Amino acid sequence: MKKVSKSFLKDSYLITELKLCSIRLIDNSKFPWIVLIPKRKKITEIFELKKKDQNLLIKEIVHASKVMKKTFKAFNVNVEKIGNVVSQLHIHIIARSKKDISWPLSVWVTKKKTYNKIILKKTIIKLESSFKV
Amino acid sequence: MKKVSKSFLKDSYLITELKLCSIRLIDNSKFPWIVLIPKRKKITEIFELKKKDQNLLIKEIVHASKVMKKTFKAFNVNVEKIGNVVSQLHIHIIARSKKDISWPLSVWVTKKKTYNKIILKKTIIKLESSFKV
Repeated sequence: MKKVSKSFLKDSYLITELKLCSIRLIDNSKFPWIVLIPKRKKITEIFELKKKDQNLLIKEIVHASKVMKKTFKAFNVNVEKIGNVVSQLHIHIIARSKKDISWPLSVWVTKKKTYNKIILKKTIIKLESSFKV
Repeated sequence: MKKVSKSFLKDSYLITELKLCSIRLIDNSKFPWIVLIPKRKKITEIFELKKKDQNLLIKEIVHASKVMKKTFKAFNVNVEKIGNVVSQLHIHIIARSKKDISWPLSVWVTKKKTYNKIILKKTIIKLESSFKV
């Protein structure tokens, strides 16, 4: 299925498939960070989704936000649709901690740092398991 | 009605009231930037809203995003729930242009610059008018 842009494939890892969205872990060890990518072609804005998909999207954002908050004992979650670089619609969900490297600023003020292989594997397994519950 | 945190009142201006959200213009002349503030007490995350309000929120995000894109002839819109500094739930909607000061980076990488009075007034009137249609 070629519904996920190549840009995501190289720096993220599939966690699970929800009804509307693929959920992928972003390879940045500074923050627990996933993206939700609606499996619809040629959509760049939330308002381009059909009404039914818009409601599915908020439902999946709610579900994924709860999972991220609980799994990483986060203080809060940042939920962001940016799309300036990769245009295919995707929603970032980042579990924030008051002790993380850019708190209270945005995650965008700091450069990414990829995971080491062991932590990456552990994080993927942890998230897969959290989304299965 | 004391449903909007004081933090918003000092650096933003009311544009209109939707069913769920107050819409306010952020006083930053670098970007056309509004916030949607759900008129519900003690809510800091989208998932704390009732299901009905979650659906209203996505509906109002869609509406406000379309208005912002059209009014400012934007290339795209950034839609962001951060809440690290002001905890009351609010959604930023920013009309982005490829010529704006931080493109293609996030709006958070640049310091704000308040409007001068004339441009501020014009922008408020323009937005009030766009939301009335």
